[in-house]
Amino acid sequence: MDLLSIKDPSFLKTMNKEELQQLSQEIREFLIEKLSWTGGHIGPNLGVVELTIALHKCFDSPKDKIIWDVGHQSYVHKILTGRADQFGSLRQYKGLCGFPKMSESEHDVWETGHSSTSLSAAMGMAIARDVKKVDSHVIPVIGDGALTGGMALEALNHIGDSQTNMTVILNDNEMSIAPNVGALNNVLGKLRTAGKYQWVKDELEYLLKKIPAVGGKLASTAERVKDSLKYLLVSGMFFEEMGFTYLGPIDGHNFDELLENIQYAKKMEGPVLLHVITKKGKGFSPAEDDKVGTWHGTGPYKMETGDLIKPVNTAPAWSALVSETVRKLAREDQRIVAVTPAMPVGSKLEKFAEEFPERMFDVGIAEQHAATMAAGLATQGMKPFLAIYSTFLQRAYDQVLHDICRQNLNVFIGIDRAGLVGADGETHQGVFDIAFLRSLPNMVIMMPKDENEGQHMVYTANQYDEGPIAMRFPRGNGYGVPMDEQFRKIPIGSWEVLKEGSTATILTFGTTIPMSMEAAYQLEKQGVSVQVINARFIKPLDHEMLEKVLSTGTPILTVEEAVLEGGFGSAVLEFAHDHGYSNTSIGRIGIPDRFIEHGSVKELWNEIGLTSDHIVNKIKSMLPAKKKRA
Amino acid sequence: MDLLSIKDPSFLKTMNKEELQQLSQEIREFLIEKLSWTGGHIGPNLGVVELTIALHKCFDSPKDKIIWDVGHQSYVHKILTGRADQFGSLRQYKGLCGFPKMSESEHDVWETGHSSTSLSAAMGMAIARDVKKVDSHVIPVIGDGALTGGMALEALNHIGDSQTNMTVILNDNEMSIAPNVGALNNVLGKLRTAGKYQWVKDELEYLLKKIPAVGGKLASTAERVKDSLKYLLVSGMFFEEMGFTYLGPIDGHNFDELLENIQYAKKMEGPVLLHVITKKGKGFSPAEDDKVGTWHGTGPYKMETGDLIKPVNTAPAWSALVSETVRKLAREDQRIVAVTPAMPVGSKLEKFAEEFPERMFDVGIAEQHAATMAAGLATQGMKPFLAIYSTFLQRAYDQVLHDICRQNLNVFIGIDRAGLVGADGETHQGVFDIAFLRSLPNMVIMMPKDENEGQHMVYTANQYDEGPIAMRFPRGNGYGVPMDEQFRKIPIGSWEVLKEGSTATILTFGTTIPMSMEAAYQLEKQGVSVQVINARFIKPLDHEMLEKVLSTGTPILTVEEAVLEGGFGSAVLEFAHDHGYSNTSIGRIGIPDRFIEHGSVKELWNEIGLTSDHIVNKIKSMLPAKKKRA
Repeated sequence: MDLLSIKDPSFLKTMNKEELQQLSQEIREFLIEKLSWTGGHIGPNLGVVELTIALHKCFDSPKDKIIWDVGHQSYVHKILTGRADQFGSLRQYKGLCGFPKMSESEHDVWETGHSSTSLSAAMGMAIARDVKKVDSHVIPVIGDGALTGGMALEALNHIGDSQTNMTVILNDNEMSIAPNVGALNNVLGKLRTAGKYQWVKDELEYLLKKIPAVGGKLASTAERVKDSLKYLLVSGMFFEEMGFTYLGPIDGHNFDELLENIQYAKKMEGPVLLHVITKKGKGFSPAEDDKVGTWHGTGPYKMETGDLIKPVNTAPAWSALVSETVRKLAREDQRIVAVTPAMPVGSKLEKFAEEFPERMFDVGIAEQHAATMAAGLATQGMKPFLAIYSTFLQRAYDQVLHDICRQNLNVFIGIDRAGLVGADGETHQGVFDIAFLRSLPNMVIMMPKDENEGQHMVYTANQYDEGPIAMRFPRGNGYGVPMDEQFRKIPIGSWEVLKEGSTATILTFGTTIPMSMEAAYQLEKQGVSVQVINARFIKPLDHEMLEKVLSTGTPILTVEEAVLEGGFGSAVLEFAHDHGYSNTSIGRIGIPDRFIEHGSVKELWNEIGLTSDHIVNKIKSMLPAKKKRA
Repeated sequence: MDLLSIKDPSFLKTMNKEELQQLSQEIREFLIEKLSWTGGHIGPNLGVVELTIALHKCFDSPKDKIIWDVGHQSYVHKILTGRADQFGSLRQYKGLCGFPKMSESEHDVWETGHSSTSLSAAMGMAIARDVKKVDSHVIPVIGDGALTGGMALEALNHIGDSQTNMTVILNDNEMSIAPNVGALNNVLGKLRTAGKYQWVKDELEYLLKKIPAVGGKLASTAERVKDSLKYLLVSGMFFEEMGFTYLGPIDGHNFDELLENIQYAKKMEGPVLLHVITKKGKGFSPAEDDKVGTWHGTGPYKMETGDLIKPVNTAPAWSALVSETVRKLAREDQRIVAVTPAMPVGSKLEKFAEEFPERMFDVGIAEQHAATMAAGLATQGMKPFLAIYSTFLQRAYDQVLHDICRQNLNVFIGIDRAGLVGADGETHQGVFDIAFLRSLPNMVIMMPKDENEGQHMVYTANQYDEGPIAMRFPRGNGYGVPMDEQFRKIPIGSWEVLKEGSTATILTFGTTIPMSMEAAYQLEKQGVSVQVINARFIKPLDHEMLEKVLSTGTPILTVEEAVLEGGFGSAVLEFAHDHGYSNTSIGRIGIPDRFIEHGSVKELWNEIGLTSDHIVNKIKSMLPAKKKRA
């Protein structure tokens, strides 16, 4: 059928199995072709083609609420709800979002990006339904990886206890982003190999009959054995212990099994967990064969061969620069241990893991545990390197505050993907970390101007022994600058003058340095002499240099790729007023007080005014009138 | 023995059971008497007397790491590690901390206050031990309530998978703060009633022999049955599924059982969970009989009768004012649902729960789930009231950001215990919420000047339909002001002039209004006319009023009981400079950039300069020289 003609999923109701299979095939071909141009989360979506179709056939969206955990697997859902025509703009500026988006469709009932929220959201929706006494189903779809996130377990605990009606779909692809870790994964492993429900049941009924029924103590044991029948039936007890009726495991690519079990679950009272085994990348061999997560989300690729179309940039990726520097240091320093919450590939820790397997800890999607475990390590004199994306560090805010900063422990937080991240959009922008970390006592926050300064900062963090220290660095690649052979310690709280100037000063750091330098040179040509300072320490500020700048009385402009409310610019304002410089004109450029959607980083910079032109104009507007005339 | 003479726990090694029992009795009497003067967490500590003694007898602290989850149950540990003489100053300014504190003793290896961190900390310490190849034990002690916190479950998952050596003590008192909820609690309930390990084992060995061993399919079933033996042994499989060896349940007040099982656990390979049943308040009948959590933590009481010595303040508690106003509104508004993470008593939601049982949700210690569940409720047109302490809201930072604010949902967050909390000290101070919430788009933050304005703000929050709205309010009681009969809507972002004045302006809100007014009157007497404004909306600011104030050019002082970095004062600085008022002198008074320890709120105010005298001096220092001379 013509996928572009789909308006809503109602057409599925009358389709037979052959038609559904045909549709699956067409959707797969569509995704493989479209995503070869735009890139996107190809692996997860190819894995849920049949599952998504089956859900939309069995339930009535949007009356029934299908909630996609993480949400990067919602492409098939977007096709079935009338958005196939927009896939040319997937994850592009003003284009189709790569995650569920309420503004796109009434079928997107919950927006996501971060993992493990679906069960809590579903519980909220189920309570609303029960209080309002309306008739609808709530169907969260959660991956096996997302299930290890603490809040998902909090929600399971509540849902299981409440006994409200809910069909939880456990989409078990044995690998969410990276291969899964943890005891829970072992439980799922047992379930996967345990075979079918009916088969076990038959055997057990036979077996149970053999158990002699004698009175007294043994009778009570017999009851326990009956209870344990349930354990045996599912060959693993985790979900039943949590209060769910467990169904499965079933083949997530087999429509007979899917439709039968979903219909069955739909009719049951209380919470049901339907365990569905799917294969990531199903139907596209490069993605199917992927063992490490390369095909979880990709850029454009060649459809025919599955070769990724690599960007021409040959400068090292920031993640690699940081992790590789940590690896070098770890050779000399036995105290270094790396901790990642499910991002060994994204954080480029593979080589570290290979060289120091006993000092590498992927704890799964468990940011809170990762941060506090790092604190625990530090209490014993270790030097943990916590590799975490800015947006996911949000999950560990209290752990950073209560466990790391309050105890003033030597944890090095490598804040990856700081700043705007581009195509992943508003759920993933790493723009809040300065605001939420700056107010924490004992915290040091730095950001390097280039990868050479980056390696020195990693070294500085390793040498620092007075508490927590964080280095933010952006998504993507460095500039390809020459790298020093020897590591150098950068004095904590020291800034650096990049360009002298007498009329105004730009204070900036990291990614906004090039645009600031460009602005300064443009202004130079117009006769305005602007100083540019690499404010590489966001906390503590360089008091000496800042006093020197403030004492000139000339205007100051702060430029940062982070939220303005409570950000670096505010720190400068606070310092100025606290130190009696209350008559200096201080302007701030950064991320305004709203969420920033997806697009290329350059497009987003343009949208919010993080450009050299805007900096030029802002500086000019701040100059005293007489200078402007000069 | 003389408890005051204890230097460290080594004396326990040679004590026999009778001596240990005698010691337990002495410690109980000591605690009941000492705490009758100071108040404190009497219930939890009376529950762990024998357990603490047994742990210190079997292990060698501080080489072996005993980690107290939450930490309010560490008083016995403090006595056994040489701090009995300091109990006169418990939880008082500069006195003994109510939680573990590294600076007090080398036996305090981990500081806490917030729940559910012990397992992650223990895992960090265990890894450090394994990497360093040293010989020591790691013993986290966690309550059944704390186990429902997501990060504890994240850690269980990691520990169970890692198979590192660790003895987890599950201190199961069937009630951590309030009665526990959730499926996990049901699991524990089953374990509690299941009887002893050995007893079940004997029976099962007999039973297993009866199962016929025949080939083929049945053989594999027989293996499964063997696996299920394990289930039966513990009559509940949760912890074994997670990879732990489960021991228990044992009587936590019986030294024979405690010592035998702890010694056994100590020798085992891999992670062990020892399930210990204790009774909160053991040995003090008022606390033993407590069903709702009154004796979890108390103020002073009469030792003989167990009557609490109530403070004379008869004004309503802030928590009650807020929850009762919500209850009134809920009678008319069916959309209102209350959500609390394990604080139904602290948040004074008992009456709400009684009147609207189907609209009241205590989700247990699960702040993340609570916040996102509230978001889920709001997507369905409900009006959730999320009752949460400021310090615990930290746990839900990402959920507030990613789920509530980003989706701009109508969640009303009642931020209880905002500001300094007093005796609970640095882990519980509610001073970061402004800094971490103010940078979130769509968020409205307000704080009332008194309980009458408080009830109007609750009403305003209920009427507000444009996104999330938070009201902070302090610990303790209101002022006893007259209450309006009719609710009134306060325009969002509107401030109020409390006192006119022409020489300077104080912008303040909530608890710091009285000291600011007092300062203004003092200054008035000295001929300095100061305006005082109730800046009841922290976000958004009152643009109109702020412009008016700024346009006078007179100095502004902001006063807030919250961290200064990124706080309300910074918002005023940002506004001033963004709107071209870059030459106004703006001073800020608030919480400095360090953690504030325990003490009475007044003592802490004095320490950090939140006093009318300091405000007077600060204002004077900001006045232009000529005015000062006038």
